[in-house]
Amino acid sequence: MKLQTSDAFEALAPELTLVDQRVERAATIDFPIVSTLIEDIVRAGGKRLRPLLLLLAARSFSADLERAVTAAAGIQLLHTASLVHDDHIDRAALRRGQPTLNAQVSSGAVILIGDFLFAQSAILAAATNDTRVVTIFATTLAEICDGQIRETLDAHRLNQNRDEYDRRIYGKTAALFGGAAEMGAVIGGADNTSIGELRAFGVDMGMAFQILDDVLDLREGAQVLGKPAGNDLRQGVVTLPTMYYADLADAASCATVEAIIAGDETDDSVIDDVVAAIRVSGALEAAETEAFAYVQSAEARLSIVEDDETRGYLLELLNMTVARST
Amino acid sequence: MKLQTSDAFEALAPELTLVDQRVERAATIDFPIVSTLIEDIVRAGGKRLRPLLLLLAARSFSADLERAVTAAAGIQLLHTASLVHDDHIDRAALRRGQPTLNAQVSSGAVILIGDFLFAQSAILAAATNDTRVVTIFATTLAEICDGQIRETLDAHRLNQNRDEYDRRIYGKTAALFGGAAEMGAVIGGADNTSIGELRAFGVDMGMAFQILDDVLDLREGAQVLGKPAGNDLRQGVVTLPTMYYADLADAASCATVEAIIAGDETDDSVIDDVVAAIRVSGALEAAETEAFAYVQSAEARLSIVEDDETRGYLLELLNMTVARST
Repeated sequence: MKLQTSDAFEALAPELTLVDQRVERAATIDFPIVSTLIEDIVRAGGKRLRPLLLLLAARSFSADLERAVTAAAGIQLLHTASLVHDDHIDRAALRRGQPTLNAQVSSGAVILIGDFLFAQSAILAAATNDTRVVTIFATTLAEICDGQIRETLDAHRLNQNRDEYDRRIYGKTAALFGGAAEMGAVIGGADNTSIGELRAFGVDMGMAFQILDDVLDLREGAQVLGKPAGNDLRQGVVTLPTMYYADLADAASCATVEAIIAGDETDDSVIDDVVAAIRVSGALEAAETEAFAYVQSAEARLSIVEDDETRGYLLELLNMTVARST
Repeated sequence: MKLQTSDAFEALAPELTLVDQRVERAATIDFPIVSTLIEDIVRAGGKRLRPLLLLLAARSFSADLERAVTAAAGIQLLHTASLVHDDHIDRAALRRGQPTLNAQVSSGAVILIGDFLFAQSAILAAATNDTRVVTIFATTLAEICDGQIRETLDAHRLNQNRDEYDRRIYGKTAALFGGAAEMGAVIGGADNTSIGELRAFGVDMGMAFQILDDVLDLREGAQVLGKPAGNDLRQGVVTLPTMYYADLADAASCATVEAIIAGDETDDSVIDDVVAAIRVSGALEAAETEAFAYVQSAEARLSIVEDDETRGYLLELLNMTVARST
């Protein structure tokens, strides 16, 4: 697993190593074919932004991070489980440059491996021995599902409003960041006002992260992303930049976008032209402005954290999350 | 929802009505297409043996069933969620005579609806405000997944041993009965010995239930089951009666069974002949003998329950579960 070089990741390196060990142990299954696959998924595990957020939220109020490590492992595993099901639903053949499970095992096994990882993440949440933490965990899972159901069934309309987009990306991304920060603050023993602010910090960060991810999908090509530019559009998913573009574009251009979303227009050169048109329309910049408003809101909420060092780490994590997507 | 006519179901009718209401409320999603589908699944909900078991386990030790109702709703929803994913994996087009979700919505939506119901069941478990209950809940989910992974990837060998079959049906069925009884006993405030006995009662009952279900699959035809006799065999799943038959049959018959399991032999008349041969071989009766040993073991464990009435209801539930399958 690749560690980031940053002060926050370095300062929390011992706890993150424990998180990794806890995750690997929880994801062990006594069944040869599956166990190797699960180990690969867990090792691929990404940047561990979510467990780090949880640990830092706890560290804002308490020096004792032991229970926070357990919850952070639960959050990382919940994230992994949700990626397993998402990949299956998107039928994406690659994620982070690695073949996904879909390329390797049957549909049924993928669903069950995801369920198994959900179960293990729930066991970790229960191991915190704090029903408030478990409730946040379960609610977060429900919100993630809500977001994914909306993305699967309802993202394919150009005429959706901003509230619908917000709710979708909240479930898809911000709910887990918010839940991680809230669980950390609860475990750290924060008062309810502080818990609310930390949660809101996580939600703001997640909203910014997802909007910038949606911008990135249109701005960058296959070399950076491992998938073609405009992948969301190709999948029929309408994102904020596309909504801004539709507000500005003429009727013929909107009709082309609608045909792509509906799957009626699949010609790559037509889609490439639309991606190019979105890029020069100012829609990406307009979406970025929205994202940075969330970043500013998140930053302001950090005034609740009294410890200078931890506040600095949270700010660094926020900037790192944003930088990753620009 | 169809109520059973039995003393136990009648005596617990007020609590079961509350369970139904709790389940329906938890399964509500503010999204029209999906909400109707989920309501249908939840209403189809089956016999509610598992929530009744949980309620009776709690009633064995306490008169206060309020928290038990919440947990019972969680168990019923966990069962429903697991059926949604199972149906998808089995690609069964009918369950209890009703079209399954697969026949109605996309693969991705089915996975997500199952995940959403898992999340809601976890929220109900957390609402008991008892981390021991939540831990049992999460562990049960993990065991169900373990059983399903084994059934999907490892049930397709005739040369499997009895331990492998036992572990599979434990995960597939007995874990949830055991978990339901254990949660009920914990909520009822039982001591650890009694909790262990009640859990073991549930496990025994679940093992008997599944073996008899496997017998039923071979004994009955489409009119009773809504699917052809020998459906497990057709799906390549080896069950106890088939294992007994293989022990008795000659090499040529075993080779035919192996070809069916491997999917190399798909001729319906050949499969029908094997089903007929299993029926007259004594294999069904041998499997039933095993099931009744579990029933006897379960019955003996009930001596721990002091309240005559509740013990009588548990015995009735046990007999009802067994009768359903014979």
